[in-house]
Amino acid sequence: MKLSPLQIARYQYNPKLPGMLRNGIAEICVKNGAPTESVADQEKIKALFPNTYGKNEITFEKGENTSPAKKQIVGVILSGGQAPGGHNVVSGLYDALKATSKENELYGFKGGPSGLIDDDFIVFTDEYINQYRNTGGFDIIGSGRTKLETEEQFKIVAENCKKHGITAIVIIGGDDSNTNAAVLAEYFAANNTGVQVIGCPKTIDGDLKNEDIECSFGFDTATKTYSELIGNIERDANSAKKYWHFVKVMGRSASHVALECALETQPNICLIGEEVAAKKMSLAQITDYIADSVAARAAKGMNFGLAIIPEGIVEFVPEFSKLIAEINELLAGSKADAFNALATWEEKYAFIKNGLTEESFKVFEILPAGIQQQLFLERDPHGNVQVSLIESEKLFSEMVKKNLAARKAAGAYKGKFSPLHHFFGYEGRCAFPSNFDADYCYSLGYNAFMLIQYGYNGYLSKVSNLSKPAEEWIAGGMPITKMMNIERRHGADKPVIRKALVELDGAPFKFFEAHRDEWAVETCFTFPGAIQYFGPSEVCDLTTHTLALEKA
Amino acid sequence: MKLSPLQIARYQYNPKLPGMLRNGIAEICVKNGAPTESVADQEKIKALFPNTYGKNEITFEKGENTSPAKKQIVGVILSGGQAPGGHNVVSGLYDALKATSKENELYGFKGGPSGLIDDDFIVFTDEYINQYRNTGGFDIIGSGRTKLETEEQFKIVAENCKKHGITAIVIIGGDDSNTNAAVLAEYFAANNTGVQVIGCPKTIDGDLKNEDIECSFGFDTATKTYSELIGNIERDANSAKKYWHFVKVMGRSASHVALECALETQPNICLIGEEVAAKKMSLAQITDYIADSVAARAAKGMNFGLAIIPEGIVEFVPEFSKLIAEINELLAGSKADAFNALATWEEKYAFIKNGLTEESFKVFEILPAGIQQQLFLERDPHGNVQVSLIESEKLFSEMVKKNLAARKAAGAYKGKFSPLHHFFGYEGRCAFPSNFDADYCYSLGYNAFMLIQYGYNGYLSKVSNLSKPAEEWIAGGMPITKMMNIERRHGADKPVIRKALVELDGAPFKFFEAHRDEWAVETCFTFPGAIQYFGPSEVCDLTTHTLALEKA
Repeated sequence: MKLSPLQIARYQYNPKLPGMLRNGIAEICVKNGAPTESVADQEKIKALFPNTYGKNEITFEKGENTSPAKKQIVGVILSGGQAPGGHNVVSGLYDALKATSKENELYGFKGGPSGLIDDDFIVFTDEYINQYRNTGGFDIIGSGRTKLETEEQFKIVAENCKKHGITAIVIIGGDDSNTNAAVLAEYFAANNTGVQVIGCPKTIDGDLKNEDIECSFGFDTATKTYSELIGNIERDANSAKKYWHFVKVMGRSASHVALECALETQPNICLIGEEVAAKKMSLAQITDYIADSVAARAAKGMNFGLAIIPEGIVEFVPEFSKLIAEINELLAGSKADAFNALATWEEKYAFIKNGLTEESFKVFEILPAGIQQQLFLERDPHGNVQVSLIESEKLFSEMVKKNLAARKAAGAYKGKFSPLHHFFGYEGRCAFPSNFDADYCYSLGYNAFMLIQYGYNGYLSKVSNLSKPAEEWIAGGMPITKMMNIERRHGADKPVIRKALVELDGAPFKFFEAHRDEWAVETCFTFPGAIQYFGPSEVCDLTTHTLALEKA
Repeated sequence: MKLSPLQIARYQYNPKLPGMLRNGIAEICVKNGAPTESVADQEKIKALFPNTYGKNEITFEKGENTSPAKKQIVGVILSGGQAPGGHNVVSGLYDALKATSKENELYGFKGGPSGLIDDDFIVFTDEYINQYRNTGGFDIIGSGRTKLETEEQFKIVAENCKKHGITAIVIIGGDDSNTNAAVLAEYFAANNTGVQVIGCPKTIDGDLKNEDIECSFGFDTATKTYSELIGNIERDANSAKKYWHFVKVMGRSASHVALECALETQPNICLIGEEVAAKKMSLAQITDYIADSVAARAAKGMNFGLAIIPEGIVEFVPEFSKLIAEINELLAGSKADAFNALATWEEKYAFIKNGLTEESFKVFEILPAGIQQQLFLERDPHGNVQVSLIESEKLFSEMVKKNLAARKAAGAYKGKFSPLHHFFGYEGRCAFPSNFDADYCYSLGYNAFMLIQYGYNGYLSKVSNLSKPAEEWIAGGMPITKMMNIERRHGADKPVIRKALVELDGAPFKFFEAHRDEWAVETCFTFPGAIQYFGPSEVCDLTTHTLALEKA
């Protein structure tokens, strides 16, 4: 295998731990905090988690390590989509485990949660771990999307743990995976397995955060990578002066990624799904909003610009969601047969017009032809519209084009509009973790082992005060149940970690809101450039604008 | 304007000059080389360039500066597509000019060559220049694609030069722009205007190179940026283990960008247009070649991979070029009316079948339906197929899908094939220049002024020995006519700089060829990561694999 010069250099990087974890394993003791309550639905959550509910928050501090001497065999899994830094969680966990006792062992279960069920694992060695330090990707053991949630699965996992003498499992995942971690922890406790479960907060989407978890890992590196590219494209737009770039970024259920990229690059337009939903904006309103910027800039001689579109935007548009629901209903089960039997698109179109409510047909009517056909022709095996396939960046650029043509006909616009499209997602999920993510992840893993060693179960590894230098970070643990509430999922009430959406009264959005009118008309582009791992601290150690604003 | 931390840090960077230019302006003298001949068609080129043909190659060395004292007013333009480092050519030029005499002035003509005709310019100051040092983009004065090639244009330019007392013009551009620079230089000389012309070799495509010019600027930064992204996606593919990524990269007329990215990232597949043309490969052969890799990897349980596709690939496929020519002929002028009058695609399809030769129809027939329609429905104002709009990454992934379905039906393939598509171009044209491009460009600009000061006309600023540290670089000048030959362009014989295609017997391709069979089947991905501007020299100062192999 050929290693790049950067990969070789990154092997030499020593991730920074929180100050309180720097004195060596023998000098880490627990400081007990207050007992916790779940953020909502306390009685219900308590009833569901009788053995793990209400535990104390804890932090670590300098002092004599009083944890019991015990051989630890820990299993770790990576769950869900890749996020930069996952390898450092594993290496931090490994280093703390081995520093505590050379006898301890770390098992990496392969391919995500299914590895725990299939009992497919490797036992980590120094040599193996060293190849992955400070690198991107989840290729150290792979990941997967199997959900660990049924009693039957838990039983198998418990048996596999017993077989190997596993004392604890670390689950590195997003909100769903950590919800499942809490349920597994409760199962282990209720069944006296003696196996502990610790979660680590991962997701580039940034939607696993709350008053305890300041941010999920990977968000920093992924948004920096997308912002590098967006800034480069802005500079290109401002040099060529002839294109409008529509840039879609990952993030289906929340717009944190789009917002952070906007704060870093100051584009002309950035749509925020949560705002679209709160204001019940229509497709026409959004289109008008973008076209206003295009027209205002054209009037100043600037026929170029850049708009950031979050991946899941159309799902936040109420009238669009209603349209999708009606289409799914219209073609449900055998009803699709009549539709499929129609030979031409014209006949199908008449069928659609007849089948939709007048309100939804009006929405359908204004969509570009390509999207109209996609909605009806590309359905999933259950016959449902595949919303994730909708190219929303093209949807809006085409609608803006039409809107501008109408303005031109009315004499209200004289510019040129040449759109180009981009989608950034896979480019950032496996980048070499930034110094921040390398440090944060290593600390999360190191800290996870300290929680294991001190006997905690159903806790999330928590490292906070992240907008400060690592020296001042605070390490500890929080019962996962504290972050939970009851939500309706697939027709049933379920205890889940509440997903963090962009808060419209939060500082990051407020900052964006205060500046976006200027950004829409002027050229206020900012060019972050590529992630730097060496060099001045202000260039290579700062984390996101989102966190800086939230903690300001 | 809000500046990013990296932009502020990059202002502090001092680009490295070739050792021989480091002793101060007063210590730079000329070393004359041999008289030159054009690479081909010597008699014709000589006849066309009687005043500028056959001049000596020159290099600079340490010694007393014997150039005449003369107030220099230099004009500079940026021509064509953006390339990282353009701002440094300007700042190097400015610094040498001001170091020679504070009285000297640098005019920046705006929006490319048209600025020279429209007399639209700014006069650079320290303050203005300082904002652009070591930054990406061409926004310092903008760029444009107007061609400077007619006698009438030259006359206007000469008049504008006379008006301002301009003594020299520096043209920063690709092969076409530098061809035009040579013609303008000859015009200036023939008409005794006293104005000199110096060119600088720019293009991310890497196709302006020859035995004198080792590489064009911007190629290093752009390919590093694309390779960063390709490496990140490879790591993602190797973590998720479920997608085949088809990555199209910029470069229509040559595949240098694709080849360099392949050398940096070791993907499973990289198509090289020049090879496709030389071997007269058919679409079916190329498809088979890719499908072989997919199938071989699937047999080893690896249903993932990455293929790099150069933007202009289909134009290198002989049967495809023939098909395009036939379609253009079939729909030329009024013949399109009959076609356009047909109501349904089925009728149009019959028309096409009837109108194409059997051979070309066979090619047409195997294309995915979307591409078939695009060829006929999206034509330019002259009725020609818009080859540049063809999404070749999707063309091949769809053809591979069909090919694999046939293999599956025959029992020869059992895998899964889920393709994803990317196109990288605009992401890299305006990145902050790498240290290499920052140094190289600054040196090109600095050196260009020395050529002016010593009275040269029709020369290209030449900096060579680039695979060595900057200290060892060699600075000088080469008559542009030396790089020229006669080519047929738009039905007429024209003197042009020969475009450099990928040489199939050159070291970079040979290296690729020697390794690609292994890369196709195994996972040999290499992850270059983001461009680094600080840190260890082996991480932040090395230039391309292409140049390293060519100079090895």
